[in-house]
Amino acid sequence: MYEGAVQDLIDELGRLPGVGPKSAQRIAFHLLQADPADVERLAHALTEVKARVRFCEVCFNVSEAERCRICSDDRRDRTAICVVEEPKDVVAIERTREFRGRYHVLGGAISPIDGIGPQDLKVRELLTRLADGTVTEVIIATDPNLEGEATASYLSRMLRDVGVQRVTRLASGLPVGGDLEYADEVTLGRAFEGRRLLDA
Amino acid sequence: MYEGAVQDLIDELGRLPGVGPKSAQRIAFHLLQADPADVERLAHALTEVKARVRFCEVCFNVSEAERCRICSDDRRDRTAICVVEEPKDVVAIERTREFRGRYHVLGGAISPIDGIGPQDLKVRELLTRLADGTVTEVIIATDPNLEGEATASYLSRMLRDVGVQRVTRLASGLPVGGDLEYADEVTLGRAFEGRRLLDA
Repeated sequence: MYEGAVQDLIDELGRLPGVGPKSAQRIAFHLLQADPADVERLAHALTEVKARVRFCEVCFNVSEAERCRICSDDRRDRTAICVVEEPKDVVAIERTREFRGRYHVLGGAISPIDGIGPQDLKVRELLTRLADGTVTEVIIATDPNLEGEATASYLSRMLRDVGVQRVTRLASGLPVGGDLEYADEVTLGRAFEGRRLLDA
Repeated sequence: MYEGAVQDLIDELGRLPGVGPKSAQRIAFHLLQADPADVERLAHALTEVKARVRFCEVCFNVSEAERCRICSDDRRDRTAICVVEEPKDVVAIERTREFRGRYHVLGGAISPIDGIGPQDLKVRELLTRLADGTVTEVIIATDPNLEGEATASYLSRMLRDVGVQRVTRLASGLPVGGDLEYADEVTLGRAFEGRRLLDA
């Protein structure tokens, strides 16, 4: 509908996840009217991210060096590995400041419907990391949905087979600050199942 | 939270209209895993749009030449001008195939609250286009909201003063395909006000 370059930009923006045709048009017009330096910065950030960012050779988190900041940090506990699906999960867990160990990013979850099996994830690489026996606890922090749970039970079986001392899974239950009446029945069921004794 | 280039890209994406921090992160990770050629195409489209696109010297629609496609098209009726707020409104009206005249893009609407007055819009340029008397009808197609209506009444007074033969405004009423019960009261009121005789 638009002339060359505007339509090209709308088309490219429309390919991004969560950006529909209306938003693509809105963003394109915003950029048309924006300061050229701002647009240049965005174009540069795109080029840079592809040129500089790769995946950590140890944990497969995003990194600008061969090893990510966490894997290069000697103060991080070597005996615990937290297994997550995506790099953004690492950021979410780091934000809690609850975990001082290292991570392993699988790059997704097992999903037969999307044709993703264990061989498509960094599972073999996880087993290699466990081979020397330094790691005593593996915390499985895949998403609490169908694919995440399938991945968790697959990994838990496999990790027990290779003799990891403790294999744990993040607790499911009521979100803090939420209302009990708005919790879905599966979450509420899990909260019952996982109930804890209160200190007297 | 992320290392350099990833965080830079998330920050830049987060500045776009309608893109929150979560979407910015989602888009950034999508791009990280995307084919480098796709990301290059997006970066190129951004650079190109700033390098090649300007505003038509006649109607202020977006254009890659001095005059936009519509202003350069001799088959378009020179006696009618449709006044709109933004280039995307031109596209919306073109899609209806109802109008064969030319456009004038104001670049916004009068909005005292945002400090936008007639002098910030292409109003003087519109008057210049009307000076030779070729144009016999001006259709005011600003948005049917507070700012658009204010702009429409301002323009209509001004256009009558300079002696344009017909100054019209797009009809307000019920959206086609909608349910009467879901129409807001202002729209329904307008639909009553603008009711038409049915052919017998």
